[in-house]
Amino acid sequence: MSNVLVLGHKNPDTDSICSSIAYATLKDKLGEQAEPVRLGELNEESKYALKYFQTKAPRMISGVSEETERVILVDHNEKQQSAIDIDKVKVIEVIDHHRIANFETSEPIYYRAEPVGCTATIIYKLFLENNVTVEKNVAGLMLSAIISDTLLFKSPTTTNQDIEIGKELAKIAKVELEDYGLSMLEAGTNYSDKSMEELVELDSKDFNLSGKRVKVSQINVVNPAEILRNQEEIKQVLKKNTEKQSLNLSILMITDILNSNSIILAFGEDYKAIEYAFNVTFEQNLVLLEGVVSRKKQMVPQLTKAFEALQ
Amino acid sequence: MSNVLVLGHKNPDTDSICSSIAYATLKDKLGEQAEPVRLGELNEESKYALKYFQTKAPRMISGVSEETERVILVDHNEKQQSAIDIDKVKVIEVIDHHRIANFETSEPIYYRAEPVGCTATIIYKLFLENNVTVEKNVAGLMLSAIISDTLLFKSPTTTNQDIEIGKELAKIAKVELEDYGLSMLEAGTNYSDKSMEELVELDSKDFNLSGKRVKVSQINVVNPAEILRNQEEIKQVLKKNTEKQSLNLSILMITDILNSNSIILAFGEDYKAIEYAFNVTFEQNLVLLEGVVSRKKQMVPQLTKAFEALQ
Repeated sequence: MSNVLVLGHKNPDTDSICSSIAYATLKDKLGEQAEPVRLGELNEESKYALKYFQTKAPRMISGVSEETERVILVDHNEKQQSAIDIDKVKVIEVIDHHRIANFETSEPIYYRAEPVGCTATIIYKLFLENNVTVEKNVAGLMLSAIISDTLLFKSPTTTNQDIEIGKELAKIAKVELEDYGLSMLEAGTNYSDKSMEELVELDSKDFNLSGKRVKVSQINVVNPAEILRNQEEIKQVLKKNTEKQSLNLSILMITDILNSNSIILAFGEDYKAIEYAFNVTFEQNLVLLEGVVSRKKQMVPQLTKAFEALQ
Repeated sequence: MSNVLVLGHKNPDTDSICSSIAYATLKDKLGEQAEPVRLGELNEESKYALKYFQTKAPRMISGVSEETERVILVDHNEKQQSAIDIDKVKVIEVIDHHRIANFETSEPIYYRAEPVGCTATIIYKLFLENNVTVEKNVAGLMLSAIISDTLLFKSPTTTNQDIEIGKELAKIAKVELEDYGLSMLEAGTNYSDKSMEELVELDSKDFNLSGKRVKVSQINVVNPAEILRNQEEIKQVLKKNTEKQSLNLSILMITDILNSNSIILAFGEDYKAIEYAFNVTFEQNLVLLEGVVSRKKQMVPQLTKAFEALQ
């Protein structure tokens, strides 16, 4: 039988990359062969983490069905965020911290979702539950995932579990949490070699919200003004995506990780859902949302409700 | 804020009843008020278990939304198997061992599914993970659920975890596993006071399988001939259900728990899916399936595949 592949979502972020490595490691130690893979290019933040903790990047693949019959999903469950041919293989496990949607199985599987800030937080608990020792580099990668997803515990998605486990992992990984975290996050805000198309695609997720096709992209920055210099070009990219991919709404969240707010650029007939959800008004496709930093907790549920209300 | 309600599926079986009690107990011990409730009448087996372990039955309710805003689902996740107004409340947790389907959330939740024989097996692990002591009667109820769902470890859904945890629970509950189990299962095969309508409804579940509306009912017996005496009447009930509920297929599995096989009575245009799935031929709406005792593992996935193939 072919190996089980462990994969995170398309446009992988640091949690998808590091959690696939960590969970494949756990599986290996439990005697089940598993290989971490990725569905896209590494971002600068993930590269920083992998280099710091001397770990090889997961192999990049474009589809799963020619490689294996069995996969484990980490950090996602929605079909449209997974491998294009995910329907052709068997999903045997899911470890995730997102809403559950567009997911269906014909047989019982192992599904572990917890409303915590990061998939790696759950995976660390699974190491403990299975009495498997966490080694330095794997601890460092799980810590990186937690720092990335919680923006160093600043995001409202952060739970006490993320903080406690983050501190434990920092000890095992032998790093000073704040110092390492800030350096890693900052490395992630380096988009100098990216085109505006790439910038929008980098961390973008597709959703079906109350029947609407919505793409929500997000980038973290320390200096929003720098990105906004190119706002006309970004709007053109959003416009093009909306038309080409028949989207109802295309959003870019430019998240200021130091000041914990997001500038929203949006395109598509349904931008009014954002205005309704947050009681704001767009000016030239742009609006500032104070305190909003989490796509998962502060954008997707609010938009879902707005679409329902506006139907 | 109103209490969280913990509920199993419609037509509750012993796992739904006992797991809702056990999980509400665990929640209470963790300081979160939770009340077990049920969506239907107790069967004879559950009555036996509750009486034996001196526990009050969960309160029966018809809907949830007038009682609470927050529910925990145990032993099911599919909407059509839950409270009729489940869409009006927030599902905050799911503990289950079935396939995942017709289930969607707008926010991340705690979802714990494992491919084990019984929900109570997972709940026992949650007691351990949370360092909460399991008391005698609650142990007895969880044991009853495991015996019921695994037919005393004879069903192919049984895993090593069910067996090991079953043995541990028997010790805590201070019962001899085989003796208690057989007595409980036998109590469950007493249908003497049931009409044929009630018999078919007792443990029936609705599914949407590849777009087909299918109802699969199951009863456990020690003497199939006794039930088959009334087969004409049962067929009339299946026919009536099929018409009244616009089903594509209505199935009754009469499962011989001593000899581990099932006699299938079926009605509806799509009975051919069963013939295709098991390579058998119905005679007068009846066929014997050797070795088939599990709806979840030996009927639903096979029918799903057959419907897909026949499309």
